[in-house]
Amino acid sequence: MSKYENRGFMPKQRAFLKLYLLNKIKEKKGGYGSQFLTDLQKEFKQYGYSPTHTELYKTLHELTRDGAVKREKRLLGEPGVNFQEIIVYSLTDEGQEQLEIHNKLMKVELERCIGLLNKAIRDNYGPIKKKA
Amino acid sequence: MSKYENRGFMPKQRAFLKLYLLNKIKEKKGGYGSQFLTDLQKEFKQYGYSPTHTELYKTLHELTRDGAVKREKRLLGEPGVNFQEIIVYSLTDEGQEQLEIHNKLMKVELERCIGLLNKAIRDNYGPIKKKA
Repeated sequence: MSKYENRGFMPKQRAFLKLYLLNKIKEKKGGYGSQFLTDLQKEFKQYGYSPTHTELYKTLHELTRDGAVKREKRLLGEPGVNFQEIIVYSLTDEGQEQLEIHNKLMKVELERCIGLLNKAIRDNYGPIKKKA
Repeated sequence: MSKYENRGFMPKQRAFLKLYLLNKIKEKKGGYGSQFLTDLQKEFKQYGYSPTHTELYKTLHELTRDGAVKREKRLLGEPGVNFQEIIVYSLTDEGQEQLEIHNKLMKVELERCIGLLNKAIRDNYGPIKKKA
């Protein structure tokens, strides 16, 4: 778990998206990549953050590679009319374990970073800052 | 100011360090690079963040290049005993203006990111989250 040993600055975007994707896939009992992207872009919009298609699909790819989620092809629509093949992602049993671990570690990471950013606000904008 | 137009995720480390360095240089009416590094590493330690020598000096270099700070050589110690040449950084007049602009923009950026991280806590750990 060296990616969590963070002598670093802010959370990694990949880890942040994994947090959301694992929990969404679990909650919805599966979902489509494009729907996740649309949902996340909508949710984060007021915070000035727009996850890219590339970043989202790289995250789904890592989750699949790590055995946390599996991909299944589904067919939507009617033959001869509008048949569409889509990929549905769902949580594996191993994914359930990985989700619990990731949730625990990301909670620490998120709180660490919120603390650091709040410190920057206090240090640089607080009322007790000495004026030069 | 395109670096502040952030469709991005988290604050940039360089911008974060600039915030601290500009305000510290102003407050202390100048300072040494190594002292800034020691101070910042000490302040951020409990938040699991350790700015590197490289990152700090790259930030000072950018501030110098942008005309916000100037570098002056000073001699410490006594001739024949322990003469040491050090670089002291101090704020220029232009730096005072850049500091005010950077402070305003970073306040928005810090608050944006604190909001996003708090949202991640609410969305993934809040009590009202639906269980699958």
